Amino acid sequence: MSVLTTEPDAVPAGEEPPDTGERHRLTAVTGLAALSLDAMASVAYGPEAIVLVLAAAGAHGLGFTMPVTLAIAALLAVLVASYRQVIAAFPDGGGSYAVAKTHLGARTSLVAAASLVLDYVLNVAVAVTAGVAALTSAFPALYDDRLWLCLAVLALITGVNLRGIVESAKAFIVPTVVFVGSVFVLVAVGLFRSHPVSTVTAAGHASVLADNASGVGALLLLKAFASGCAALTGVEAIANAVPSFRVPRVRRAQRAEVALGAVLGLMLIGLSVLIGRFHLQPVQGVTVLAQLADASLGHNWAFYVIQFATMILLALSANTSFGGLPVLLKLLARDNYAPHVFALKADRQVHRHGVLALAVVSAALLVFSGGDTNTLVPMFAIGVFVGFTIAQVGMVRHWRLDRGPGRRGKALLNGFGAVLTGVAAVVVTASKFTEGAWLIVIALPLLVLAFETVHRAYGRIGERLGLGRIPEAPHRERSLVVVPVSTLSRLTSEALTAATSLGDEVRAVTVCYPDPEDRAQLHALERSWAEWDPGVPLVRLACARRSLGRPIAAYVREVAAAEPGTRVTVLIPETEPERLWQRLLQNQRGAVVAHAVRRETDAVICRLRFRLP
Amino acid sequence: MSVLTTEPDAVPAGEEPPDTGERHRLTAVTGLAALSLDAMASVAYGPEAIVLVLAAAGAHGLGFTMPVTLAIAALLAVLVASYRQVIAAFPDGGGSYAVAKTHLGARTSLVAAASLVLDYVLNVAVAVTAGVAALTSAFPALYDDRLWLCLAVLALITGVNLRGIVESAKAFIVPTVVFVGSVFVLVAVGLFRSHPVSTVTAAGHASVLADNASGVGALLLLKAFASGCAALTGVEAIANAVPSFRVPRVRRAQRAEVALGAVLGLMLIGLSVLIGRFHLQPVQGVTVLAQLADASLGHNWAFYVIQFATMILLALSANTSFGGLPVLLKLLARDNYAPHVFALKADRQVHRHGVLALAVVSAALLVFSGGDTNTLVPMFAIGVFVGFTIAQVGMVRHWRLDRGPGRRGKALLNGFGAVLTGVAAVVVTASKFTEGAWLIVIALPLLVLAFETVHRAYGRIGERLGLGRIPEAPHRERSLVVVPVSTLSRLTSEALTAATSLGDEVRAVTVCYPDPEDRAQLHALERSWAEWDPGVPLVRLACARRSLGRPIAAYVREVAAAEPGTRVTVLIPETEPERLWQRLLQNQRGAVVAHAVRRETDAVICRLRFRLP
Repeated sequence: MSVLTTEPDAVPAGEEPPDTGERHRLTAVTGLAALSLDAMASVAYGPEAIVLVLAAAGAHGLGFTMPVTLAIAALLAVLVASYRQVIAAFPDGGGSYAVAKTHLGARTSLVAAASLVLDYVLNVAVAVTAGVAALTSAFPALYDDRLWLCLAVLALITGVNLRGIVESAKAFIVPTVVFVGSVFVLVAVGLFRSHPVSTVTAAGHASVLADNASGVGALLLLKAFASGCAALTGVEAIANAVPSFRVPRVRRAQRAEVALGAVLGLMLIGLSVLIGRFHLQPVQGVTVLAQLADASLGHNWAFYVIQFATMILLALSANTSFGGLPVLLKLLARDNYAPHVFALKADRQVHRHGVLALAVVSAALLVFSGGDTNTLVPMFAIGVFVGFTIAQVGMVRHWRLDRGPGRRGKALLNGFGAVLTGVAAVVVTASKFTEGAWLIVIALPLLVLAFETVHRAYGRIGERLGLGRIPEAPHRERSLVVVPVSTLSRLTSEALTAATSLGDEVRAVTVCYPDPEDRAQLHALERSWAEWDPGVPLVRLACARRSLGRPIAAYVREVAAAEPGTRVTVLIPETEPERLWQRLLQNQRGAVVAHAVRRETDAVICRLRFRLP
Repeated sequence: MSVLTTEPDAVPAGEEPPDTGERHRLTAVTGLAALSLDAMASVAYGPEAIVLVLAAAGAHGLGFTMPVTLAIAALLAVLVASYRQVIAAFPDGGGSYAVAKTHLGARTSLVAAASLVLDYVLNVAVAVTAGVAALTSAFPALYDDRLWLCLAVLALITGVNLRGIVESAKAFIVPTVVFVGSVFVLVAVGLFRSHPVSTVTAAGHASVLADNASGVGALLLLKAFASGCAALTGVEAIANAVPSFRVPRVRRAQRAEVALGAVLGLMLIGLSVLIGRFHLQPVQGVTVLAQLADASLGHNWAFYVIQFATMILLALSANTSFGGLPVLLKLLARDNYAPHVFALKADRQVHRHGVLALAVVSAALLVFSGGDTNTLVPMFAIGVFVGFTIAQVGMVRHWRLDRGPGRRGKALLNGFGAVLTGVAAVVVTASKFTEGAWLIVIALPLLVLAFETVHRAYGRIGERLGLGRIPEAPHRERSLVVVPVSTLSRLTSEALTAATSLGDEVRAVTVCYPDPEDRAQLHALERSWAEWDPGVPLVRLACARRSLGRPIAAYVREVAAAEPGTRVTVLIPETEPERLWQRLLQNQRGAVVAHAVRRETDAVICRLRFRLP
């Protein structure tokens, strides 16, 4: 997935601007390790998605795991070849969004962006649920609490990203290598076994294999294929990050892409061989990968190592969305397609709003799915395939404009890839429509619509602000400062000092009510005001109803209307409490007055925070 | 409960200050009807509380319903006699808080206030659950959703109170009369029947009568007595509202108090006669009152009328807390015992913060109890008895200071009442400690502690603010206005106009980062600034890290340190969006800058909201 993660800007919490030295850039090998995390992680749920669909046709159906996997591996080969061409054509990276922006127009690029947004979100949900599934496969007692575990993992990842850890794509190398190595060991050992060392089905788990197995039709195989394509997510990551490679960038990135395809394909095929060899059947609460580890290595420390490696890899894979989505949102915000707040880095150096938005939506998806990976995987696949298809259609356009040699063959390859991924997208959407795919079918166009609405709104606002034109010159106006007062204290003195410094004229105002108790207070205030004699008049605003903000706002409106050319400022003095809990003791009069003045007048609002001496 | 509801200030949403004309005041009869709501409503759960305790001893135990009720009626007589004396001694009203404040010192009055706060809260929870129980007794299908029904009723009452309805104690007369009339009809008809018309136990409900009935011990009877005393809540309401009566106030209020005692006592005794006559047994999901209505009137329209009347009366009874607690909190806030925000009436004329606080705590109690009245009733009784006891101990002190005739007898009566209610409080607390009473035992002292902590904090703040002393005279200082700028637009022009009007000197500042893209933006800004030439220097604040607020705050600190005697103001310009959703489009830069400046400097913060033309 991590489409933009390794762009220079994507380091979410870099203390320093990214080093531009070649020395720190990626070679084919380090690039493979650093950028293949998401693709490798999808091995944890891809084969399982195939097995779960085929299980509907019983043991006979499961026999088709191998052919389906081979078809997916073939699609993988086409995708890798396609993306080699994307790398060559777009050496600046950017993936499907960049391709679509160049060749397919603004709206299609927004569709690509929307599918990326959905993928980032779904990547978090899928990776977290799959990681927790790896954990509960090892510790079945935790299975019933999986939703809470998922939310806890999400909270942890969110917290880490909000604090802003210094993070580098290279930190991902070790877990990726450990995971890939474990899977290869698992496959290799399994190939030498004639029968499983141990099977979890024997351990009291319920098999979810269909009893009244239906026949194996073309539709079932298509569904299995489409579901299993979830294993292909992440293949585009290298194409998005070409600038991170050492020169010659394109060559190195292409080599890494091919190696990624080879490793991923080998893992998928190897696992599917084992699935056939061990006559594996899906079991509730235990992942396919856990069953294979059990069968191949036995239920010992090696099993737990694989489960932990899987869990950590998946958690890191979820984490890459937190690096990528905020950056994508920032790019969209810069192009005025998303609220500008997503482009704002606060003092913590993180795109806090992007991180929080991602966490909230992911949490909603986790709750929606009940923490179950296989509910989310089809949704995930749709977005990924939409992105793949757009990128390849764009590439076909690219080759039509290109005058280089062999452009016909290249266009054919990309066109073939586009057809394959497009068909896969349609199949997944149709076959899983009622099981969650409808969410994507609704969300994708809504997101595009939202981007366009935001864009238009910013256009109008910019027009009205006269952005890009030289505005009229500022001029000095007479300044009148109004200070609401209710009692006499050091705060009042401080406020009047500030007000006389700011204004040509200062008026203190106090609201009075007909209530006898209030009138007594007013008289006391007026007496001490006269005694104090600060050189500022105290204006009495009579009000029949007990209201605070409105009489002051009304007075400000009145003054502004009576004296045009005078700039009216309302200065609201407040004490700044020493301790945080003492904020509870503040009377919120300032907030009430500020709210009313802001809503009903054009006056400038000054808030003076007075630190208690 | 409504201890303060009918105080002049208690009309929560009165458009006008309360009418002070005698004509609108209460006679003994209208006063009884208007102020007895809470007391009458407690008939809906008081007898049930007795029956539920006695059911532990089987049918034999239930035979003691009558003696226990008679004991409660006797206590009621003592309380009414006691409160007649409170009325005479405190013709200004105020109840236990006033008595304690006068005779028992500040801390005891705070204990009384805390017990009142708890009672208001528990009154809401008890009345809502009992009202919903009346509803689900009529419509058993709703029984499983009772918690949601409770929360919905609470939300409705809260919403109505937040909007601020014009409300008068007199509006309560009709439902009170209907309810009391229904109960008397029910009792009268029942007395003429030799056996029940219909019994709900026959309708498939499960009896909760204990099978292995234990013996009837003194402890059981004490527990039944203490639980049933919940029927006495609300007896103090008239004593709190003496000023609302027509002259001669004391006489009329005393007559209303006696009438209240008589009506309440008759209802309690009447219902307990029927309980014995019909051999009623507690049934889950059907209130005792509903069973009696069924048995006496039959399962027909009359049954539904009684259930609806009960539900509406209980909802109104919950509503009185929303009138009373905010007023009590306001009084506490005025005395600096509660945050001043509770004394703030916003433009809607309601004590919004008090209403919301009450709603939140009541909702928590509803969830805690699962919507079950009988979990809450004992907690309710504790607070009420603490209040009764404090009031009567205070009255004993009162008579010791008094020199009037018969003061010894009066003191004896109040002392006797204090002992009875004190014992009842101890019994309920001890017998229900593990079932929820611990909550009150913890909450009561914590509340008192909170009041005292708030009081001390306000004392310190007032000291530091120099409240009550004439502060030093304000003086004019040189004014420097700093305006953060990032692009050039009409907003910038407007901001500089405001700044030059407010300041002797104005400086625009812009933060720049080493990033090439940012540097290009900066140069563009500087070029157009030079072209615009507004007469204000543009200061460049270099910042290696991407940070917005801190560099500006650091600059302000620096300037303030370099030029003592200069008042630095930071003017933050922002656009005011036309539509609400467009707030999402604001970039929040203003908020970030304001937060940093507020936290790290003493500068005045001005926010200019620019309405788009």
